[in-house]
Amino acid sequence: MLPKALTSLIDALKELPGVGPRTAERYAYFLLKQPKETDRLQVTLSNLTPNIKTCPVTYELIGADQDVSSIYSDTSRDKALVAVVEDVFDVVAIEHTNSFKGTYHVLGGLISPIDNLTPESLHIPELIKRVDKDEVKEVIIATNATIEGESTAHYIQNQLENHKVKVTRLAQGLPIGLDIEYADQVTLARALEGRRAV
Amino acid sequence: MLPKALTSLIDALKELPGVGPRTAERYAYFLLKQPKETDRLQVTLSNLTPNIKTCPVTYELIGADQDVSSIYSDTSRDKALVAVVEDVFDVVAIEHTNSFKGTYHVLGGLISPIDNLTPESLHIPELIKRVDKDEVKEVIIATNATIEGESTAHYIQNQLENHKVKVTRLAQGLPIGLDIEYADQVTLARALEGRRAV
Repeated sequence: MLPKALTSLIDALKELPGVGPRTAERYAYFLLKQPKETDRLQVTLSNLTPNIKTCPVTYELIGADQDVSSIYSDTSRDKALVAVVEDVFDVVAIEHTNSFKGTYHVLGGLISPIDNLTPESLHIPELIKRVDKDEVKEVIIATNATIEGESTAHYIQNQLENHKVKVTRLAQGLPIGLDIEYADQVTLARALEGRRAV
Repeated sequence: MLPKALTSLIDALKELPGVGPRTAERYAYFLLKQPKETDRLQVTLSNLTPNIKTCPVTYELIGADQDVSSIYSDTSRDKALVAVVEDVFDVVAIEHTNSFKGTYHVLGGLISPIDNLTPESLHIPELIKRVDKDEVKEVIIATNATIEGESTAHYIQNQLENHKVKVTRLAQGLPIGLDIEYADQVTLARALEGRRAV
């Protein structure tokens, strides 16, 4: 009933995370009616892989013409302060705060043996080497407050125990604007634990 | 912070209907990690426009190598029975019922002067001509039960008044499995109106 060219596109779109048959149909129908957007998407897709590589130091994503991440090569950034994050979008989120003047180390995931994510595949050995080589003074572990995030943080902390470096974690507590009565128990417990003198 | 090739893809993905910055990032990151899916999407996008055209009789989407819709050219289908639908996915939905042996007329939208959708752009004049040419006995107006769907149905009904053709609409009433107490007022009113002898 639908031409093969359309059903093939719908099938390809269905592979995107969280996209079901209905959403894929909507996207495909939109693209069919907007040939300019189809062209644009096609061009950006073809440019994706050849123009992106991973920074060999920080594992951020960088342009194929760059040697290292522009944050790492920026002399105004503190190389002795390293934030360890799960993925590149966490870098974007932290940069948007304008509160961090150090550099990053992108794990590309969190430790999860079920998903075949081992410390080695997450560049943790490279982090340890970098701590020594760059004489890092503080490693801020900025992983999510989830089970995987916590266990990855613990693992990194253990690995860095015998190195002369301070290991910190992002503060956990009440998000700004949240009413205490709506906070979940764990968040509230962490907020109590981490209470500070005013 | 993110390479240009990635942000360009995110921007292109944000144009898809209902896709915000977060979703676009998720799609882009998935595509970055799955080069095979990126290639597949790229190929299906490039095949889209050159391989699809509109059937000159029914306005269904057909392969570029076809002359008319395969449903219309199928001799087992009744050309004297025409279902008028808003778009091609409605054809798919009706075909899946296996309850319709007629042919289709795809409007490609519903009358909406604000969106510049006029009877002419919706192939309504072509429908009238087809009714005479194919000696159509019944036109089933299968538009959505919305204001636009209703007014488009009324318009088509008026246009066909002086033609020898029966004009019908899809029945409106309780959807299967719905508890009466949860039905909205209009649906319940229509179900009462359209009640049938058992």
